[in-house]
Amino acid sequence: MINEKLPKIWYGGDYNPEQWEKEDWDEDVRMFKLAGIDVATLNVFSWALNQPDEETYNFAWLDEQIDRLYQNGIYTCLATSTAAHPAWMAKKYPDVLRVDFQGRKRKFGGRHNSCPNSPTYRKYAEWMADRLGERYKDHPGVLIWHVSNEYGGYCYCDNCAQSFREWLEEKYENLERLNKAWNTRFWGHTFYDWDEIVPPNALSEEWNGDSTSFQGISLDYRIFQSDSLLECFKLERDVLKKHTPNIPITTNLMGTYKELDYFKWGKEMDVVSWDNYPAYDTPESFTAMRHDLMRGLKSGQPFMLMEQTPSQQNWQSYNSLKRPGVMRLWSYQAVARGADTVMFFQLRRSVGACEKYHGAVIEHVGHENTRVFRETAALGKELAKLSDTLLDARIQAKVAIVFDWENRWATELSSGPSKALDYVNEVHKYYAALFGENISVDMIGVDEDISKYEVVFAPVLYMVKTGYANKVKEFVQNGGTFVTTFFSGIVNEHDLVTLGGYPGELRDLLGIWVEEIDALPPEEKNQIVVKKEAGSLTGSYECSLLFDIIHSEGAEVLAEYGSDFYAGTPVITCNSYGKGKAYYVGTCPDTEFLKDLVKTVCEEKGVKPLLNVPKGVEVTERSKDGFAYLFIMNHNSSVIEFEISEGTDLLTGDEFNGTVSLDGYGVMIIKK
Amino acid sequence: MINEKLPKIWYGGDYNPEQWEKEDWDEDVRMFKLAGIDVATLNVFSWALNQPDEETYNFAWLDEQIDRLYQNGIYTCLATSTAAHPAWMAKKYPDVLRVDFQGRKRKFGGRHNSCPNSPTYRKYAEWMADRLGERYKDHPGVLIWHVSNEYGGYCYCDNCAQSFREWLEEKYENLERLNKAWNTRFWGHTFYDWDEIVPPNALSEEWNGDSTSFQGISLDYRIFQSDSLLECFKLERDVLKKHTPNIPITTNLMGTYKELDYFKWGKEMDVVSWDNYPAYDTPESFTAMRHDLMRGLKSGQPFMLMEQTPSQQNWQSYNSLKRPGVMRLWSYQAVARGADTVMFFQLRRSVGACEKYHGAVIEHVGHENTRVFRETAALGKELAKLSDTLLDARIQAKVAIVFDWENRWATELSSGPSKALDYVNEVHKYYAALFGENISVDMIGVDEDISKYEVVFAPVLYMVKTGYANKVKEFVQNGGTFVTTFFSGIVNEHDLVTLGGYPGELRDLLGIWVEEIDALPPEEKNQIVVKKEAGSLTGSYECSLLFDIIHSEGAEVLAEYGSDFYAGTPVITCNSYGKGKAYYVGTCPDTEFLKDLVKTVCEEKGVKPLLNVPKGVEVTERSKDGFAYLFIMNHNSSVIEFEISEGTDLLTGDEFNGTVSLDGYGVMIIKK
Amino acid sequence: MINEKLPKIWYGGDYNPEQWEKEDWDEDVRMFKLAGIDVATLNVFSWALNQPDEETYNFAWLDEQIDRLYQNGIYTCLATSTAAHPAWMAKKYPDVLRVDFQGRKRKFGGRHNSCPNSPTYRKYAEWMADRLGERYKDHPGVLIWHVSNEYGGYCYCDNCAQSFREWLEEKYENLERLNKAWNTRFWGHTFYDWDEIVPPNALSEEWNGDSTSFQGISLDYRIFQSDSLLECFKLERDVLKKHTPNIPITTNLMGTYKELDYFKWGKEMDVVSWDNYPAYDTPESFTAMRHDLMRGLKSGQPFMLMEQTPSQQNWQSYNSLKRPGVMRLWSYQAVARGADTVMFFQLRRSVGACEKYHGAVIEHVGHENTRVFRETAALGKELAKLSDTLLDARIQAKVAIVFDWENRWATELSSGPSKALDYVNEVHKYYAALFGENISVDMIGVDEDISKYEVVFAPVLYMVKTGYANKVKEFVQNGGTFVTTFFSGIVNEHDLVTLGGYPGELRDLLGIWVEEIDALPPEEKNQIVVKKEAGSLTGSYECSLLFDIIHSEGAEVLAEYGSDFYAGTPVITCNSYGKGKAYYVGTCPDTEFLKDLVKTVCEEKGVKPLLNVPKGVEVTERSKDGFAYLFIMNHNSSVIEFEISEGTDLLTGDEFNGTVSLDGYGVMIIKK
Ligand SMILES: [Zn+2]
Ligand SMILES: [Zn+2]
Ligand SMILES: [Zn+2]
Repeated sequence: MINEKLPKIWYGGDYNPEQWEKEDWDEDVRMFKLAGIDVATLNVFSWALNQPDEETYNFAWLDEQIDRLYQNGIYTCLATSTAAHPAWMAKKYPDVLRVDFQGRKRKFGGRHNSCPNSPTYRKYAEWMADRLGERYKDHPGVLIWHVSNEYGGYCYCDNCAQSFREWLEEKYENLERLNKAWNTRFWGHTFYDWDEIVPPNALSEEWNGDSTSFQGISLDYRIFQSDSLLECFKLERDVLKKHTPNIPITTNLMGTYKELDYFKWGKEMDVVSWDNYPAYDTPESFTAMRHDLMRGLKSGQPFMLMEQTPSQQNWQSYNSLKRPGVMRLWSYQAVARGADTVMFFQLRRSVGACEKYHGAVIEHVGHENTRVFRETAALGKELAKLSDTLLDARIQAKVAIVFDWENRWATELSSGPSKALDYVNEVHKYYAALFGENISVDMIGVDEDISKYEVVFAPVLYMVKTGYANKVKEFVQNGGTFVTTFFSGIVNEHDLVTLGGYPGELRDLLGIWVEEIDALPPEEKNQIVVKKEAGSLTGSYECSLLFDIIHSEGAEVLAEYGSDFYAGTPVITCNSYGKGKAYYVGTCPDTEFLKDLVKTVCEEKGVKPLLNVPKGVEVTERSKDGFAYLFIMNHNSSVIEFEISEGTDLLTGDEFNGTVSLDGYGVMIIKK
Repeated sequence: MINEKLPKIWYGGDYNPEQWEKEDWDEDVRMFKLAGIDVATLNVFSWALNQPDEETYNFAWLDEQIDRLYQNGIYTCLATSTAAHPAWMAKKYPDVLRVDFQGRKRKFGGRHNSCPNSPTYRKYAEWMADRLGERYKDHPGVLIWHVSNEYGGYCYCDNCAQSFREWLEEKYENLERLNKAWNTRFWGHTFYDWDEIVPPNALSEEWNGDSTSFQGISLDYRIFQSDSLLECFKLERDVLKKHTPNIPITTNLMGTYKELDYFKWGKEMDVVSWDNYPAYDTPESFTAMRHDLMRGLKSGQPFMLMEQTPSQQNWQSYNSLKRPGVMRLWSYQAVARGADTVMFFQLRRSVGACEKYHGAVIEHVGHENTRVFRETAALGKELAKLSDTLLDARIQAKVAIVFDWENRWATELSSGPSKALDYVNEVHKYYAALFGENISVDMIGVDEDISKYEVVFAPVLYMVKTGYANKVKEFVQNGGTFVTTFFSGIVNEHDLVTLGGYPGELRDLLGIWVEEIDALPPEEKNQIVVKKEAGSLTGSYECSLLFDIIHSEGAEVLAEYGSDFYAGTPVITCNSYGKGKAYYVGTCPDTEFLKDLVKTVCEEKGVKPLLNVPKGVEVTERSKDGFAYLFIMNHNSSVIEFEISEGTDLLTGDEFNGTVSLDGYGVMIIKK
Repeated sequence: MINEKLPKIWYGGDYNPEQWEKEDWDEDVRMFKLAGIDVATLNVFSWALNQPDEETYNFAWLDEQIDRLYQNGIYTCLATSTAAHPAWMAKKYPDVLRVDFQGRKRKFGGRHNSCPNSPTYRKYAEWMADRLGERYKDHPGVLIWHVSNEYGGYCYCDNCAQSFREWLEEKYENLERLNKAWNTRFWGHTFYDWDEIVPPNALSEEWNGDSTSFQGISLDYRIFQSDSLLECFKLERDVLKKHTPNIPITTNLMGTYKELDYFKWGKEMDVVSWDNYPAYDTPESFTAMRHDLMRGLKSGQPFMLMEQTPSQQNWQSYNSLKRPGVMRLWSYQAVARGADTVMFFQLRRSVGACEKYHGAVIEHVGHENTRVFRETAALGKELAKLSDTLLDARIQAKVAIVFDWENRWATELSSGPSKALDYVNEVHKYYAALFGENISVDMIGVDEDISKYEVVFAPVLYMVKTGYANKVKEFVQNGGTFVTTFFSGIVNEHDLVTLGGYPGELRDLLGIWVEEIDALPPEEKNQIVVKKEAGSLTGSYECSLLFDIIHSEGAEVLAEYGSDFYAGTPVITCNSYGKGKAYYVGTCPDTEFLKDLVKTVCEEKGVKPLLNVPKGVEVTERSKDGFAYLFIMNHNSSVIEFEISEGTDLLTGDEFNGTVSLDGYGVMIIKK
């Protein structure tokens, strides 16, 4: 349980009373109660209010808010306010300001705007956390610490440059090893002095954000910047922990956000929390994947849904409303995948600045007679009824998908073979196929123990880190099924090619040699022609973009290309290795193929869908204390029917046995 | 009359004899006379010639040109040459150079390139105007002053930053009020010292030119920069006025140009002038709207068409020629909508630099045997015949459309609900519907008296400034018809939301409450289903992009949505208020709907088309001394026919009574 | 012969042993021998290795490599390593770093990154060449000098600014002439002091890379930067020449690369070399045109194919493999058009950094059992058999196409009439028509003697330099056929319009006056209606984009426009002038028209296709010592047949007489 003080699914969200007059506060509390809200995130962006100048700290307003809420039964998720420095600090200490990718020193503005290696920022952020910890360590209303907010963005300033050099010296010890790791003899970039190294941005090695002349330095800079921000988090965390060893600490993450290696971050947090903002055209499977990824950061431990909008966003191109029922549906989707909280941004809509058209529980109209409020209050009632039933319940997946940020960076920094290759998209294709079958999946990092799984997918496992190939081999040796794809096994963790033939360290496991990689524009199609039917795989499928030219070195050839000069050569292979199997998908297949592939490999290992349901219906299972809770979520707008053997709906108390119908956007939680 | 010295429609344009040899000058004059040209704009870009260094002024060349032209019957529109500083000034006083949106200090180059808050620029620009005023104050050839040229562009330099702070202090008096107006507690941007405020650009609060974290500062910076350039205009104007209180002063504007609040500018000018450059695909209605807008800057007072091309432009993507007859047609379109001059850029095509492929009266071939010259000369003859008949004639519109630059800026700076919302396009849709019906329209600012109109349209009246809601209510109370749309009544002049329910201050007038605003991608369509037929409104229409979810609070529901979860809820409403009516259009309708809407509301108020004519024929009316002059302009390339009761064509002297035919691109001016 | 030491078609490529361990070197040599490789390009990017600090030079590694290769029968193409400065130099002497188009001072990174006017760069680059010349002047393994690498890119730093001013003073002598040439009175840009002139970039006169306010300064800056880099080349060349007067010197060019005036460069090189990198969708005719252009730089002298990929590239969007046979086919295409070498980038694939996915003779797998290696080795054997047969053989073209970089720059810098006008595309359209007919073409500069040709095409000869019109007139007077197009004869070499009527100096030769130029968006089509059938020209064709409105002043009107207001006016004309003819194409015609046009004008002059072959088959002829060598290259993937009177295939020894068949991607070299 995140905090035993509130033994239920937390319900609430960001709250900024400091933007409002005292007369609004009572109205807020009245409506929070109506809506069943029991947690409010305070102090997210109040640094300038808390510290109006270098010497002065002012927390009276915060004392008052925490007290007032607590007295009304509402706990505080207490933020540290360090996600945007005060204007006075930017003016007095310009080192807090970042230098951007274009090499431009920024001026005061925006948020998430502090250089992570700024001495000033680090000093004052730590002091702020220290003062907050000291002040509120014994307050009964404080449920959890929310450090900073949505960490992100990179800096390229001179302080970062200097810290980068120190970080590199720590990592490589000497320049000879660094030069080797970065292959600097290419284009004569050999460094003879640490000071010759400059951050890779648009003034030096990079362009267009994702293009670089030297993958080595670019990859290291991403790791370094992610680490630098993580250092900032840890600074605050450690000082808070000193004051309140028993209050959990989090910071809100952003799903598949590119710039931070969240697996490293997850390890440092007591509980993972994240902000879920699907766009009007985001597939449900993509949201589901992000929930599973967030759950994976701490190996399955329940997480917090820290933010979602009750209705609409403001920063999309087209900010569509969540249709009636959809906010509830998506809230349960989070819970269904491991969330133990349902929280919003935000509780009251702001009156000015750039987020004023972002939905809130209390809209600009200010009263409770709105569709959004009614839906919020109805959900609040339901969550109250659920009490602590689901808290800490775990998902038992037998299938995992590997996701790795450094691999992602390396893939996206690669010059060639195809600009169309997008790591997250490729991973999502496999996830979506499993999602479509309602097979539970863990999204795991490369440090995760994989022996507990039956099937592990590692799409585009381009970078194979030290020891990882052996871990996978042991897994397969012992009977596991491993599935990987084109552009895997190519490089080590420095983005240096593993010589001797692709897929490098995975070559004997997969029983193949990839001689060449063809890359064609998206409109050029080839075919995956099944040679030997296996499970659901039969006939012919389409494929495109990348085409490995493969020699079997022992693997069974499941399918061959249908055309081009490599027609009749292997495209899908399966190698028996020890007690297990290793599959290789040498191209970008269509969704039909992926559907049949995941069915085939899962069935082989006895991994089955959680329930047979119509298309568009999502099913997950959380279990606890010997009970299983089956979440059935209808993403269709119309009613559907399906069969269920037996069970009781937690939400309605209805007992089922046979044909069940579920409304459009409806949700059931069947206890078995 | 702009200047009684030349009591006819002025005919001429920009002339740069300083770019040519003496031997060309006589040829110029010979051809000007052939073409009926009687006014030449001199000295637009001659600062470097006039002032070769800090100490020296040299006007001999200008004396000679003004004299020479005057002796040949050609008046001078005398520019002040301050639209591009000399290279020596940029080198010696870099404060004249701007800092751009990206935060880059510019170097010498281009034009319209001076920082409006540069002490050097202000000093020397004023001195230049002073010397010109002093020198030519008694010259009989000088018809009008043309200050600078096409003011525009923003600067973000330190001088501007400092001036901005002073401007803000003037406006807000104290930081508390500023912090409140900008809602700086959002994201902790509270300012404790004026010096902490920096200009909002790509280094601070903005990106992509139109995106901002803080609408408040961004809006104020636009007002401030528009004001700063206006200060520069006023500096020159005042010193010229001192020398020549009776010579009118103008500067050439650019229609719907985004960066300057032309309603403020119009107030400071004796006569409005503007440069009309439609692209190959600009609708005629859009040009018409810009003419009407320019006329509206001074509440209907005739304006100057300062520039148009006789044939083609150079800076469009595809610089198509004006088809034979089109230059004449478009010249009369200007006159038809209030212009008392027809002037070109330029009289002779330049031999080098970036405008050499811009059309001119005298082309590179240098003689008069060109289509362009023949058409120019033919028009010159016609204008001479018209003499002073049309001068000062006014357009009597009973319909107005509100246009407001601050509202436009706020709308375009808004984050959400839809990136597809474009203020000028939305206004133009309503204008185009009225244009299609040949109903005269005034384009008015928010300071305009509206009691004189029958119908006032205010599309996307997002920002309702202090007092404006009352003005509109009084108008409707007294019997007027008011039409507004989605995204109206939302904010006050600081872009702070009017709390308590949209459309804010207009809510009781409109008799509705807008609970939510849905935004969908352009391909998603809904329907406007007419519930109660009114006037021409019947059946069903398409709509898209934005969809207000409306509750009637007394308004009659004219139409409802046809689909989506708000099917059957109001989309078009009409509220009776006092003696008048207030219409609300809750979505972006198709053109058929707008056509039927404007017909309906105009017919209700007895406002009728000026004449029944075929499609593609534009009709306006100017009146003076008891006579009405009906302009009939055929934008089709082929001949059309229509009925006219009686009248005489000013251009041919033909008298009409019954069926009339008009050639493709033809024009008639019927005196009644 | 490039160097008589190796009297055969050189075969090899870039080789970077310094990126590899000693143990790899023997394997490299073993495989080079297997592949018939006899030349390796060393030292391209080894500056940092050669000179680890300011004082130290270290060539031991290079001694060892050159020796080792030579002992194994492999010659060295010895690069000077100055294409990327060492990191220590950038740190110690920032003047070596460029300022980019955006005005940003760059930091260390990338390649081709040195300011050409940096005193430090010039000093150390010259010293490096001096040391290399001194050290290797007597080494028998050194075949040729390869100065720097792929010169390119512009710099806008203060050193460049100062050098630019000096360069301008040299060119114009005084500011009066410069002001006149740049037409600076336009927009008041008159310069009174050389120091007022700043480089034209995004901070001053230019934007978007190709847009400018002043074509004069922008054109001069391009010439100046091309000259500055050429100065760098000459510095190294001269010092090398001093040491080794008999070893040829080259630098590798890049075909139609925009930024350098390669005709000037060709004059300074002993032999032209270039890097041929077609994308997956580059037409064969475009590659052929670039080969012909490279041959034209030294008036037909054979050139070197310095780089091509054996398989795929890494920096295209989609890096497709060269299909089996295509590498051979394209290698012969180079030889067929004048190359006396076939060389690759590179011999061994790098293990890290941005080119590791670029194909190489030795792939990452490291052995010879790859398709790529097999094809490389097979070609090596063939080239060995060809011995010196083809060396120095020349192409005898009777048709030339004029290509001029300054004209290209001026065309692309032009503001108006159409953004769709692309000089290289327009030239290629004419080239492609001739290529389709297998008519030999020389791509020539404006300095070339044209009296030797029967037909000269000069598409978009916008800029007519001093004396060029007379040269063309003399050519036509003596019986030649000249073909030019719209937007020709417009300006002189300063981009100042030739007044008095387009096409300026070409007007009497062409017998026409172009009164106006219409420009329409690409979707707007007109027709070329043949009025008088001539040769293959008959019926009607489509045209678009630009439409000259033409008056014949003696020229015969071959075709007229089919529509728009200039329907029935001339579009294609032919003027008899002396013994010859001058054709004018007043629009952008479709490919059918161009095909018929080139057939017509060539047939008139007795210029015939080299052979009648099916579509997709390329034919060229090189001749030497009284023999003709007909290259027949099948770009189709399937077999084709054609007739040949007699001849022997150099590659197979087969003798032919009658019907011959040629495999898909097959090549024949018929000796006659
Ligand atoms: Zn930093
Ligand atoms: Zn400024
Ligand atoms: Zn430079």
